[in-house]
Amino acid sequence: MTRSARRMADIQPFHVMEILKRAHELAASGRDIIHLEVGEPDFASPQPIVEAAQRFLTGGHVHYTPALGLTALREAIARLYHDRFGADVSPERIIVTPGASGALMLALAVLTDPGDEWLLPDPGYPSNRHLVRSFEGNPRALPVNASTRFQPTPAQVETAWTAQTRGLMVASPANPTGTLLTLDEIVALQETVSRRNGVLIVDEIYQGLNYGVDACTALSRLDDVFVVNSFSKYFGMTGWRLGWLVAPEAYVRDIEKLAQHFFISPSTPAQHAALAAFEPSTIAILEERRHEFAERRNALLPALRQLGFKFATEPQGAFYLYADISGIAEDSQSLARLLIEEAGVATTPGIDFGNNAPERHLRIAYTTGSARLIEAAERIARAL
Amino acid sequence: MTRSARRMADIQPFHVMEILKRAHELAASGRDIIHLEVGEPDFASPQPIVEAAQRFLTGGHVHYTPALGLTALREAIARLYHDRFGADVSPERIIVTPGASGALMLALAVLTDPGDEWLLPDPGYPSNRHLVRSFEGNPRALPVNASTRFQPTPAQVETAWTAQTRGLMVASPANPTGTLLTLDEIVALQETVSRRNGVLIVDEIYQGLNYGVDACTALSRLDDVFVVNSFSKYFGMTGWRLGWLVAPEAYVRDIEKLAQHFFISPSTPAQHAALAAFEPSTIAILEERRHEFAERRNALLPALRQLGFKFATEPQGAFYLYADISGIAEDSQSLARLLIEEAGVATTPGIDFGNNAPERHLRIAYTTGSARLIEAAERIARAL
Repeated sequence: MTRSARRMADIQPFHVMEILKRAHELAASGRDIIHLEVGEPDFASPQPIVEAAQRFLTGGHVHYTPALGLTALREAIARLYHDRFGADVSPERIIVTPGASGALMLALAVLTDPGDEWLLPDPGYPSNRHLVRSFEGNPRALPVNASTRFQPTPAQVETAWTAQTRGLMVASPANPTGTLLTLDEIVALQETVSRRNGVLIVDEIYQGLNYGVDACTALSRLDDVFVVNSFSKYFGMTGWRLGWLVAPEAYVRDIEKLAQHFFISPSTPAQHAALAAFEPSTIAILEERRHEFAERRNALLPALRQLGFKFATEPQGAFYLYADISGIAEDSQSLARLLIEEAGVATTPGIDFGNNAPERHLRIAYTTGSARLIEAAERIARAL
Repeated sequence: MTRSARRMADIQPFHVMEILKRAHELAASGRDIIHLEVGEPDFASPQPIVEAAQRFLTGGHVHYTPALGLTALREAIARLYHDRFGADVSPERIIVTPGASGALMLALAVLTDPGDEWLLPDPGYPSNRHLVRSFEGNPRALPVNASTRFQPTPAQVETAWTAQTRGLMVASPANPTGTLLTLDEIVALQETVSRRNGVLIVDEIYQGLNYGVDACTALSRLDDVFVVNSFSKYFGMTGWRLGWLVAPEAYVRDIEKLAQHFFISPSTPAQHAALAAFEPSTIAILEERRHEFAERRNALLPALRQLGFKFATEPQGAFYLYADISGIAEDSQSLARLLIEEAGVATTPGIDFGNNAPERHLRIAYTTGSARLIEAAERIARAL
């Protein structure tokens, strides 16, 4: 007798997979598809990272590591915080995880009792609300819009807070909107949350992918905060599945217990590869790519504006544009279908990111080269 | 204000980590330590697997895969079931996961409502009860002993079943006892569980590591069962973190949704490495190792018996001996401490595996060479 747990009724798939499936069908039939839906860099993993993995693999001694990760990698991440942001973060507080997904799971599992509410900006990364639900918490949407750069304000958090609220998650740079919080704004949110004895989780997964503004970390001003990060985006290591969590010291022992049972340990080859992620030769490659992303953004944004896509706030990070399509179409899902069928351009409709006017928004990722982006804009122009 | 979720009060760490820590301290001070506590093969990953990964990494295109895993790998696993066990398993039902831990998480998350009970043999793999608890289920111990080869019987399951029981987990070969279930016994347990509308999860993580008996899979007789497997143990790929889950077809879509949010996808390099795991050249290496494990077991078991360790049932699988120490010492934790301090031999006390007479049992892993195993027995003899 088939009977899934009740939580499954609330857990949605990534809707973009339908678009992706259609894109593959069209490609199989010979159509040229431009992928603007993909949430991962199109670049290969930097060569120093790949070579570090290949060197490590020689001999084949690929055994478990400690559950919290290799000491050398935790120390290297601590040095990154120190050297790049002037933040003193003890390696003891750094937990290496199977992707940022693993970090989110650990943070939510250690913090969430059944019935606890988490305030989540909407639109936001879809998995957040489903992970909250997986551990029997209640995701509660904080609708955000261009007037606050799609970020929640302390006043909004105060208004939404109830006796059941456990905390707030924010992302900077954010997916799908590409907007950032300033350090002062993060501190103000943390003060609000902390006055209510709540917890702030800051998603810094897209840290380093910022254009025209400096990158920052909550950790340069705050200790009593959970910070999620990843080797996937800036470091170009999506398929390796490696991220990290920085937790307040008092939670580390409980998180270690969960990490043992959830994962045993993070991928050993990925950890050895990541040891090369902070080397100057790698950073040089990554900074070049960052400039390339900035150029793509600077090419795509005006081209889309000319087509009638609206951006009331300029995204400054990640590799996403979250377009208001109300001047072009009634409904973003229909528009996404039109664009894939008529223009051969794949995009992600707003529905994946929540319930806050999703029909009016489309996420466009600039994870493909500038020439293709311009071609995409031309094809969209013809299709509309 | 530090406040972990209530579930954390029930989630224990791996206690063996304390022994391991002491072993490292002693080793650092110059002592020679023999590791009989380690739950992973001492062998390197087979060379064809390593080379497949290195080939794949050239070029660095390490991107996400589908959430359920590479189609080619799911098909290769289906072929393994067909060729080795004559079992017809559709690749659609095979979900590639970050280690068997990931498979256990997916199965328990899709099946467990808050308050649902899972019947778990005690002694058993420690993470099972903690994963049940993580998703707000209640782990319920089924005490098992040598009289039933440490495996539960249908009668015992019937007696323990309540209105809250969701299902039963069994393992064959089992950790920590190394005992197997026959196919007939698995089918009988499934019939019992299924009559109560419950679900059977079969842990086949140590499949292939069997000595003097043939390996089997529940899938050659059953479809309506969840089967967990791993590339870690027989295939020698612990640190790669790759396993799989076979689920009844009706659950696959829900599991896919969870896999997207929990993991995005399993490690891409590990999946490409695993494509070489079923090649004849790899299997030849693995079968040699299996013979080596059998020789170790055949050397260690009589040596320990001579020292007064009792084994009322002969373990036939995995790489563990679960010794009754009642003829030697009062308490297995004290004995483990004595053995590490006096003999430089690290073992795992029963406490890690549950509450069923843990003080009377010690797990001894033969994950080190025969000469070292004999030396360990001699050192233990002197220490006692």
